[in-house]
Amino acid sequence: MADLFTVLTPREAWCKLEPHLHPMDRLEAVATAEALGRVLAEDTRAPVDLPHFARSAMDGCAVRAEDTHGATEGLPAYLRIVGEIVMGKPAAVKLSPGEAALIHTGGMLAVGADAVVMVENTRSVDASMIEVVRPVAKGENVIQIGEDMAKGDALLPRGSTLRPQDIGSLLSLGITKVSVFQKVRVALIPTGDELVPPETEPGPGQIRNTNAFALAALAAKAGAFPIVMDIVRDNYESLKATAREAWELADVVVVSAGSSVSTRDMTARVIDSLGKPGVLVHGVSLRPGKPTILAAVGRKPVFGLPGNPASAMITFGIFVTPAIYRLSGCHQPPQRFAVKAILTRNIPSATGREDYVPVKIDEKNGELFADPVFGKSNLLFAMIRADGLAKVPLDKVGMVAGEPVEVTLF
Amino acid sequence: MADLFTVLTPREAWCKLEPHLHPMDRLEAVATAEALGRVLAEDTRAPVDLPHFARSAMDGCAVRAEDTHGATEGLPAYLRIVGEIVMGKPAAVKLSPGEAALIHTGGMLAVGADAVVMVENTRSVDASMIEVVRPVAKGENVIQIGEDMAKGDALLPRGSTLRPQDIGSLLSLGITKVSVFQKVRVALIPTGDELVPPETEPGPGQIRNTNAFALAALAAKAGAFPIVMDIVRDNYESLKATAREAWELADVVVVSAGSSVSTRDMTARVIDSLGKPGVLVHGVSLRPGKPTILAAVGRKPVFGLPGNPASAMITFGIFVTPAIYRLSGCHQPPQRFAVKAILTRNIPSATGREDYVPVKIDEKNGELFADPVFGKSNLLFAMIRADGLAKVPLDKVGMVAGEPVEVTLF
Repeated sequence: MADLFTVLTPREAWCKLEPHLHPMDRLEAVATAEALGRVLAEDTRAPVDLPHFARSAMDGCAVRAEDTHGATEGLPAYLRIVGEIVMGKPAAVKLSPGEAALIHTGGMLAVGADAVVMVENTRSVDASMIEVVRPVAKGENVIQIGEDMAKGDALLPRGSTLRPQDIGSLLSLGITKVSVFQKVRVALIPTGDELVPPETEPGPGQIRNTNAFALAALAAKAGAFPIVMDIVRDNYESLKATAREAWELADVVVVSAGSSVSTRDMTARVIDSLGKPGVLVHGVSLRPGKPTILAAVGRKPVFGLPGNPASAMITFGIFVTPAIYRLSGCHQPPQRFAVKAILTRNIPSATGREDYVPVKIDEKNGELFADPVFGKSNLLFAMIRADGLAKVPLDKVGMVAGEPVEVTLF
Repeated sequence: MADLFTVLTPREAWCKLEPHLHPMDRLEAVATAEALGRVLAEDTRAPVDLPHFARSAMDGCAVRAEDTHGATEGLPAYLRIVGEIVMGKPAAVKLSPGEAALIHTGGMLAVGADAVVMVENTRSVDASMIEVVRPVAKGENVIQIGEDMAKGDALLPRGSTLRPQDIGSLLSLGITKVSVFQKVRVALIPTGDELVPPETEPGPGQIRNTNAFALAALAAKAGAFPIVMDIVRDNYESLKATAREAWELADVVVVSAGSSVSTRDMTARVIDSLGKPGVLVHGVSLRPGKPTILAAVGRKPVFGLPGNPASAMITFGIFVTPAIYRLSGCHQPPQRFAVKAILTRNIPSATGREDYVPVKIDEKNGELFADPVFGKSNLLFAMIRADGLAKVPLDKVGMVAGEPVEVTLF
């Protein structure tokens, strides 16, 4: 009784799915202040100059630069204080040669002034006179009109995932609403004759449905809107009805398939019955996660993930999360550079297969160590003790203690 | 006109604040399935054995291990199939010597069975007879009662920030509600005579209030609940009234102070007027962020951050975010190991000062490069082009192109 499916490498499998992933076309308008983590659906440009008046970058004195030329500690320039710039008001002070005005950081440059002397480079002579002990060049310590952003300058392109600084920048230009991609809707279908809802006491032979909720949380973490469907029994017609409902409701469908070969095959048949192109990949050279199904029905990706909880989460991270990002419209998924850590124990593997092993990360003397958390049945309890997943590459027969390993943190 | 405050290193400054940070005592009950990112307020233990029946870890045949002893390809053991274990039901099959039952992954072990032979190690002879070509030991491919979790075993301790696998694990044990710490409430006070709300067209000398919203987004990212207060003018009594209101409303108060020395001093005086211990640190050897104020009033931390947008965000990340985590009750903030990257350009600094410089990260041939994004006025527009902040340590007078630098990603 040999393998019932031909397996592809994770990379090959992804390449079969990728042409079927299309960014969403449903947009919505949201308040910029509430748009953290949302994906911009429009190119943004500065509608105004920023700043829209010449501002001081320092506390000090607004001056005419030429009045300070040649000033030194020993031979300072003497300037007459003719007023103080009031914050938030049009500059009411006008400088003639030999005159200066007190100014605060962010204050509007006085009429006639073209530079600011830092307070540290001035000495007070009396209430109406200062010494300037260092010259300033024209424009020094001044932010010119449009210097931060000129009207029409490109700001954030379509596809940007909005971060706190992006929100601040948009608001500083008066862009208080933005058009964003709607959240990707991910339907999760728990299947299995043995499943009961988490709030139900399971009888002999039964277990609680937990995969769908763990996967829903992973979807939410990726910025999607998860929809957990009711439990479906291992029955072709029931699964087909629910899968079709989910496909109509959501942008991505994930069937948390049973673990046995027969239920996996049924999942593949149901997906094929929904429409073209159907199953693209059935079997990936991955541990855990070999029985993974990648499919597309119309423009929507459909996944059949293994029933084992850790396998389901790991394959979700490898295939579904990147697919969500692709659909979300973002031009770059959030940066998750894997950390390099030193393995503390051997990990067995087989060449031609990628292995993912939950590891605990410890930091000692600035170096990171990855301690594999082995669990006989690959259950969630290994995942809750771990900080991330160590990857054994395809071409390795295993890794030995002391070797550096790539760890993707949770 | 010398420095108006004595500066501490960032580490010294944090040590002054730290004794005043107390985890919250306001708890709430939430549905486990909705608790992603929340912090557990109770130690959790397994209320039941998991699994609560002996389950198969494989597709194959439930057997009595002794019946397979000595079995080989050439000399297989012959076993009679007396039934199939139905998923989700009490095992109805009972094995006598020489008998086996078909079983699926997750199925309940037949009465009398003590091991499972993988389907790959069986050959079908006819409908009621199989050959077993490899022996199994007692317990092989079986998950015993309580093997994943025994009743009473410690699960997740108080202070755990719930991840998808934690939610799955709690639900698998029937823990559908959990007690969590309430979200930390962070009040943000925008101050400045020059500020107008983002939706208002600023006149000459005026700018839009954006800091409070960028900082609110940072607070939300740290799991807190942000409250943006109305703009306060640079007036002692107004700021005092709003600061007191914010202090009563929230667990953390952040004053986005004006940039000038006078408004910073006013902020410090207002904080001192609210109660003891008052201002703990006024000035940190940090660029940007030197004028940062760290304070506590009663059991609540209060911060005065610089008015410059980039400085405000950077100092928020260095001081306020860790304080939020401390108050949130979590025993370990989310792991944000800094990445190491190669600097592409020199960064000037001064010994005795920590510098944070926005950098763009590029990956070439598996190596990371950090390209500093310089901006004259340290405004948000450098932050939006950057992927993270490179840190120049206290003891360096600067860093040169080609040196490895530590970068905290946004």
